[in-house]
Amino acid sequence: MQALWLENRQLCIRNDLPVPAAGEALVRVRLAGICGTDLELARGYYAYAGIPGHEFVGEVVELADGTLVGCRVVGEINVSCGECQSCRRNLQAHCERRSVLGIRDRHGAFAEYLGLPVRNLHRVPDAVPDEAAVFTEPLAAALEIQQQIPINAKHRVLLIGAGRLGQLIAQTLVLAGCDLHVSARHARHRALLLSRGIRLIAENEIAARDYDIVIEATGSPAAFETARRAVRPRGALVLKSTYRDSVNVNLSALVVDEITLIGSRCGPFDSALRLLERRAVDPTPLIDAEFSLVHAIDAFESARRPGVLKVLIRP
Amino acid sequence: MQALWLENRQLCIRNDLPVPAAGEALVRVRLAGICGTDLELARGYYAYAGIPGHEFVGEVVELADGTLVGCRVVGEINVSCGECQSCRRNLQAHCERRSVLGIRDRHGAFAEYLGLPVRNLHRVPDAVPDEAAVFTEPLAAALEIQQQIPINAKHRVLLIGAGRLGQLIAQTLVLAGCDLHVSARHARHRALLLSRGIRLIAENEIAARDYDIVIEATGSPAAFETARRAVRPRGALVLKSTYRDSVNVNLSALVVDEITLIGSRCGPFDSALRLLERRAVDPTPLIDAEFSLVHAIDAFESARRPGVLKVLIRP
Ligand SMILES: [Zn+2]
Ligand SMILES: [Zn+2]
Repeated sequence: MQALWLENRQLCIRNDLPVPAAGEALVRVRLAGICGTDLELARGYYAYAGIPGHEFVGEVVELADGTLVGCRVVGEINVSCGECQSCRRNLQAHCERRSVLGIRDRHGAFAEYLGLPVRNLHRVPDAVPDEAAVFTEPLAAALEIQQQIPINAKHRVLLIGAGRLGQLIAQTLVLAGCDLHVSARHARHRALLLSRGIRLIAENEIAARDYDIVIEATGSPAAFETARRAVRPRGALVLKSTYRDSVNVNLSALVVDEITLIGSRCGPFDSALRLLERRAVDPTPLIDAEFSLVHAIDAFESARRPGVLKVLIRP
Repeated sequence: MQALWLENRQLCIRNDLPVPAAGEALVRVRLAGICGTDLELARGYYAYAGIPGHEFVGEVVELADGTLVGCRVVGEINVSCGECQSCRRNLQAHCERRSVLGIRDRHGAFAEYLGLPVRNLHRVPDAVPDEAAVFTEPLAAALEIQQQIPINAKHRVLLIGAGRLGQLIAQTLVLAGCDLHVSARHARHRALLLSRGIRLIAENEIAARDYDIVIEATGSPAAFETARRAVRPRGALVLKSTYRDSVNVNLSALVVDEITLIGSRCGPFDSALRLLERRAVDPTPLIDAEFSLVHAIDAFESARRPGVLKVLIRP
């Protein structure tokens, strides 16, 4: 089959790859999205060789028990072992021996077909078009924040970063009814937020200790420091991005102000699909471009440009 | 009056100091304790000139409305302004304009008398001797952990550090019924824990990702790293000490494992006094030495020795 292949920081299109073996659901990829992690994989930040891509919507073409064949599905990206400490705690996304679609030990979605265990799949409601369903994984990640910390109308919330993930976080925070400010660097990102009635704040206008909850979604150490200063005593600072290097942190300030720092990663697919079905969240304005799989390398080029949000690949 | 005086990293005994002015409760200090923060103040880590000391039990000798005169009291150390954002949020310990007894803009307890607003005072139950009541402030700080994160019998908990504060934390964690391991460096600290049936673990035997909750009570960056590695995915890491410098933190590991980091400082005096009254916690075995106020400099020398726990000063 045809797929994008990553090896030694080099991307290439290959046509000689085998269709994923039987034993899991075989999914024909209808549409896949490029996210920041894919760009970092391609830069060599993680050791991964194989087919990248983990945001997708597809159609089940083969499954042992036949149940989902012909259905449109999205898939959770962590494939768990079922036996380790984390799995026994029902924390499958944290399985110690997990493979991760297109990220670790498992070929991903920039391909004609991918394989995933049936337990990872979620059926996409008919009302959700492919162009929205392909955002299920990052939207679930955005929703994870509210699984970890209750956010409601009494909270003053600051979101730093309005890129691919930040835009989705902003849309989900609006649903919580909180008093939300978003700090965004790119004019287009600001325009998208304004079009949904979301209030902006300039970075230099962020007051110290002014927010109950601050969400850092840029992954930049400088933004971490801005975020820390903006949290009020006893407030919460949610980290929604990974950082390339270790960050120098004033831990004493966290202790003195009794701040809670919350690391946040993958989230609930079922909630994400429900919000898409109700159109409570609309990710489609984030789409900047679509490329066919044979032009996937151009798609990566496009996704790397500053300010670009979602670039899709259609096999 | 007589008091210990700190200025430019120098301690001296002075006899020329005025009794605190009227307007607040005047408290005759019966007994005061030296804590790690006092030693750091004396080393010049914070800019403070004046009478140090914030752990005390005393007797009210003068108060405008006369209510508490003659009563034994302990006192919360943060004196709030009543007007700032934090005060309006009912977070008086986080008041933006707070003075702190013996630490910031307010003379402390290593003196014959101290002044505090009456709202900061708590009456000591008759059943609690001075030698136990003097531990109310650090015991309250230990209890703050369970105000911030519920801990119960189903939790596997690791405490790193069993010094002045760590010993009190260990005793309060036992009451939560959790599966507790304590890592302690000094033989005497270990013996104190063993005498209360608390299980020890050697630092090199701490398994990675093995604990639901880890409490770091040493303030050493190396211990922070040990603590972080010991927390399981979705677990909590409580920071109970300040760190002299910034610490290099692998924030990505916190994000990937969705760990919650909780800074923890001052706690509830009423709960601490209740536990002392019921003898559910016994801090008196931590007392290593008692000095009269005139020998307070020797008391500091004694408190500085490695492994020494509580040194008391009796005016
Ligand atoms: Zn597992
Ligand atoms: Zn205040």
